[in-house]
Amino acid sequence: MSKVSVIGAGSWGTALALVLADNGYDVTIWARRPEIAEEINSKHTLEDYLPGVCLPDGIRASHRLEDALENVSMVLLVIPSHVFRSTARMIAPLIGKDVTVAHATKGFDLDSLERMSEVLLSEIPQISPEQAAVLSGPSHAEEVSERYPTTVVVASVAKHTAEFVQDHFMNGNFRVYTNPDVVGTELGGALKNIIALGGGISDGLGYGDNAKAALMTRGLVEISRLGAAMGASQSTFSGLAGVGDLIATCTSKHSRNWRAGYMLGQGKTLDETLANMKMVVEGVRTTKAAMLLSRKYQVEMPITTEIYRVLFEGKAPKDAVDDLMMRGKRHELEDIAKNRFHPKWKM
Amino acid sequence: MSKVSVIGAGSWGTALALVLADNGYDVTIWARRPEIAEEINSKHTLEDYLPGVCLPDGIRASHRLEDALENVSMVLLVIPSHVFRSTARMIAPLIGKDVTVAHATKGFDLDSLERMSEVLLSEIPQISPEQAAVLSGPSHAEEVSERYPTTVVVASVAKHTAEFVQDHFMNGNFRVYTNPDVVGTELGGALKNIIALGGGISDGLGYGDNAKAALMTRGLVEISRLGAAMGASQSTFSGLAGVGDLIATCTSKHSRNWRAGYMLGQGKTLDETLANMKMVVEGVRTTKAAMLLSRKYQVEMPITTEIYRVLFEGKAPKDAVDDLMMRGKRHELEDIAKNRFHPKWKM
Repeated sequence: MSKVSVIGAGSWGTALALVLADNGYDVTIWARRPEIAEEINSKHTLEDYLPGVCLPDGIRASHRLEDALENVSMVLLVIPSHVFRSTARMIAPLIGKDVTVAHATKGFDLDSLERMSEVLLSEIPQISPEQAAVLSGPSHAEEVSERYPTTVVVASVAKHTAEFVQDHFMNGNFRVYTNPDVVGTELGGALKNIIALGGGISDGLGYGDNAKAALMTRGLVEISRLGAAMGASQSTFSGLAGVGDLIATCTSKHSRNWRAGYMLGQGKTLDETLANMKMVVEGVRTTKAAMLLSRKYQVEMPITTEIYRVLFEGKAPKDAVDDLMMRGKRHELEDIAKNRFHPKWKM
Repeated sequence: MSKVSVIGAGSWGTALALVLADNGYDVTIWARRPEIAEEINSKHTLEDYLPGVCLPDGIRASHRLEDALENVSMVLLVIPSHVFRSTARMIAPLIGKDVTVAHATKGFDLDSLERMSEVLLSEIPQISPEQAAVLSGPSHAEEVSERYPTTVVVASVAKHTAEFVQDHFMNGNFRVYTNPDVVGTELGGALKNIIALGGGISDGLGYGDNAKAALMTRGLVEISRLGAAMGASQSTFSGLAGVGDLIATCTSKHSRNWRAGYMLGQGKTLDETLANMKMVVEGVRTTKAAMLLSRKYQVEMPITTEIYRVLFEGKAPKDAVDDLMMRGKRHELEDIAKNRFHPKWKM
């Protein structure tokens, strides 16, 4: 079996390494901190991030990139978005020009507003777009590491690359669909974290399931609208990397973004909330990126705007949600509302 | 203010009557059982269905249709699907030809496979399609009766009718969008109950949030596919009456269909499960209807098929969910998979 490297020893990177090891691959995880590599190698655990999980023998870890990347056929990056570019730059000299480079990071590069695969391709110039892939979808690491049934999407502009990555991950508990829409798959995974913050805020305010379902639905509409402007396929947002991931993130106790929103809804400040979280809350940075993207592409994103105001301008969560609810009477399909003579309306 | 009649004193009919009364309308609820009408009139409660809720003074009830329908400008039917046709037939002679007739029932007529608005129009021939409307969306009655924020859709082929119904219901807690797609709005509300049964089964089996999100996503795909064949707009399924209602029904403790599925997943039989429910579990009949519709329109509905097997053919829930998970490798967009030379794939 060929060798695979996972860059990043967080909960999600380690859970994905476990799937690869279950499938018989020889996996090396790169951990930034030597003590984490040591824990994985000696105890086969990652107690801080995946408590109670025993990692399979096929997983080895190293804090040296040279070790992790030696003779691999595939590299998978699973690191927070704010260190994505610097890490891609570090590994670039160690990546052979035939290697498949995939990632499972859900966010944007805040300085350039590039998607993660764009960062990969600019920092690792020896690989072509046909060698890059993204893995996304509704997949809490805790459940994957317990072998609960999980279904994800792998997107690449090249079918053979999507299928190569699919072949590595597919098994009886972990089902992988392929998709040619890299842009939509990356946007769905990143932007849904904003709506998860909103869903948490709504729950923290005690607003109930009707309100949250409405917020998630309207959230999906504005995500899709930005996606359309950025060249994504609408069908991706109706799929696992869109609505699927949105549901998993907004309705699960495992979601960090939902939990952060919940604390905000209960009256905690952003600083208090983030101080309570052991792991990165990607939605906070993603809200900033999405605000900039919505201006760049001139797309209206009312939910993102209100969450931005709560996070960065001190707006009270209750005022933000109430303002969203109280917008004027609308037609559900705004383009229909604009066209009073839509063929479907009988006047 | 004009008079409105609500036909059906269940939890949802009564909650909608409460919204109308909050908006100043003079509402009469028709209750089949005299003792229910008596409870609403004397105690202003509906203890069996909306425990703890005090109904506003603007609501009156009667078990006599002639009382309930006297001089009304709008009638709203909110009754289980299996008595929808017989009730529509009973009220028909009492409906003036200028009355707006709306409904909020989520199901099919099992004998004819007609949607509820089709039943209305065939049983009340003096009204035209332009006078009919459907109200649907993510809206647990319990939350609406507590004035939690809620957002719904009103669909009619006539814009003025959709807006007439919207004007009756819209207020600070209850937000109403209009939509011209009656077919999609009715299908979304009815078919999502099948997926809620499936989501409950998955939860009852202990399969986790990843599995449920995948099931809901794939469920939405097959609902949309049947909808397309029946003439619905795809955008309706991405809206409140589609994914919105799906989310609210699959993820809330208030959902009867989810609870019934949960009991099935935990090993109860269908008879044991239904004996435990005080109210109608529409999803059971809807699964039957959807199986017939999928054959009629030649649309593949794998989740509906598996749930049908669990409900009516004694298939073990675990085998059904496992069979869904283990289907062969697939592309997420099946039409793309069939076309190996889709323009988005670089081969």
